[in-house]
Amino acid sequence: MRISELSRRSGVPVTTVKHYLREGLLPPGRPTSATQAEYGEAHVRRLRLIRALIAVRGLSVGATRDVLKAVSEHAGDAHQVLGLVLGARPAGEAGKSGAAEKGGDRGPSAGTADADALLAEMGWDVSEHAPAKTVVTETLETLRSLGVDYDWRSLVPYAALAERTATLDLDQLADTCDPLEQAERAVLLTVLLEPALLALRRLAQEAESARRYGD
Amino acid sequence: MRISELSRRSGVPVTTVKHYLREGLLPPGRPTSATQAEYGEAHVRRLRLIRALIAVRGLSVGATRDVLKAVSEHAGDAHQVLGLVLGARPAGEAGKSGAAEKGGDRGPSAGTADADALLAEMGWDVSEHAPAKTVVTETLETLRSLGVDYDWRSLVPYAALAERTATLDLDQLADTCDPLEQAERAVLLTVLLEPALLALRRLAQEAESARRYGD
Repeated sequence: MRISELSRRSGVPVTTVKHYLREGLLPPGRPTSATQAEYGEAHVRRLRLIRALIAVRGLSVGATRDVLKAVSEHAGDAHQVLGLVLGARPAGEAGKSGAAEKGGDRGPSAGTADADALLAEMGWDVSEHAPAKTVVTETLETLRSLGVDYDWRSLVPYAALAERTATLDLDQLADTCDPLEQAERAVLLTVLLEPALLALRRLAQEAESARRYGD
Repeated sequence: MRISELSRRSGVPVTTVKHYLREGLLPPGRPTSATQAEYGEAHVRRLRLIRALIAVRGLSVGATRDVLKAVSEHAGDAHQVLGLVLGARPAGEAGKSGAAEKGGDRGPSAGTADADALLAEMGWDVSEHAPAKTVVTETLETLRSLGVDYDWRSLVPYAALAERTATLDLDQLADTCDPLEQAERAVLLTVLLEPALLALRRLAQEAESARRYGD
């Protein structure tokens, strides 16, 4: 197909497609003349993943290039691919928890002891410097600084529900075999469902509050 | 206690306490001289709730005053108080889903049909214009616009898990009898736990992916 058709099929404007070609995010098409090239289905799938990583996941062009390179190197290994697309950091978050991430040669930082205890309790096998560990630690610290008596054990029932949520998430990916398509779906479902999951909790709180205290 | 002690106990700077007094968020203390007043435990609790609504929930001073007024009018009605503090809109979100909120005289908007179907399926009794309904609708629309085949029925198992999460949330409030304290705890636990719950989902995804696809 021509670049105009590629744009229509992927929902990415032609100028943006050309930008991705120049930046090496998208491999070149097969030249059919000095100014035109032919693109295939692989380009459509790759473009949709690029769009998911940049527009939805919030990655920079450079970070997206790194993820795509790693994805193509591990295309046969679903766990690696999922880890690569879900573990990549959005551009704006880079500095936020940088200390914990850069701690590779210092061993685990003292601040993540709570998160480590929770992970051990759940039997979860995750990378030592997962950004989400820092979020758990920071939340507990914030609650404590506001005078709320709350420790990691209070999170265990929430973690058990998160485990069931993650099982749902991965079940929804299991029927896709193409690694690029699976990576795209993982990004979309993980990132885009986040506000909806929080909204469902609020709605459920209102319903449960009405059930307990309503008349 | 003096205003300095009130500041220390609540963690709110003296200048901010004075600002809240001027704005009528905090009732005046009992005057002990022309320039000094005596404050009590009720002031400490009230200040902690104000801080939770403004600094954590992101409400404006005006919206906080409205919530506090409504809370004191319904102090004996836990469901009303929870609805008031959890349903109040942060300052930055006011315009975002305004159309759905202002639709009181137009009946439910067409766009919330998905959310209504989900609520009916779950048997959840929530207010017609709950902002969280709009979030659910928008998420489904975004997924569809990106070519992901996803409808409200796919959210039912997530809603079932949200229901169990909300039960945990309300259990954690149940041992508090003072309505101001309960309102404060509701805001802190609802808002501050949000990033941690999303982080737990990411960690659980990584663990579940390792279990399924790891070696």
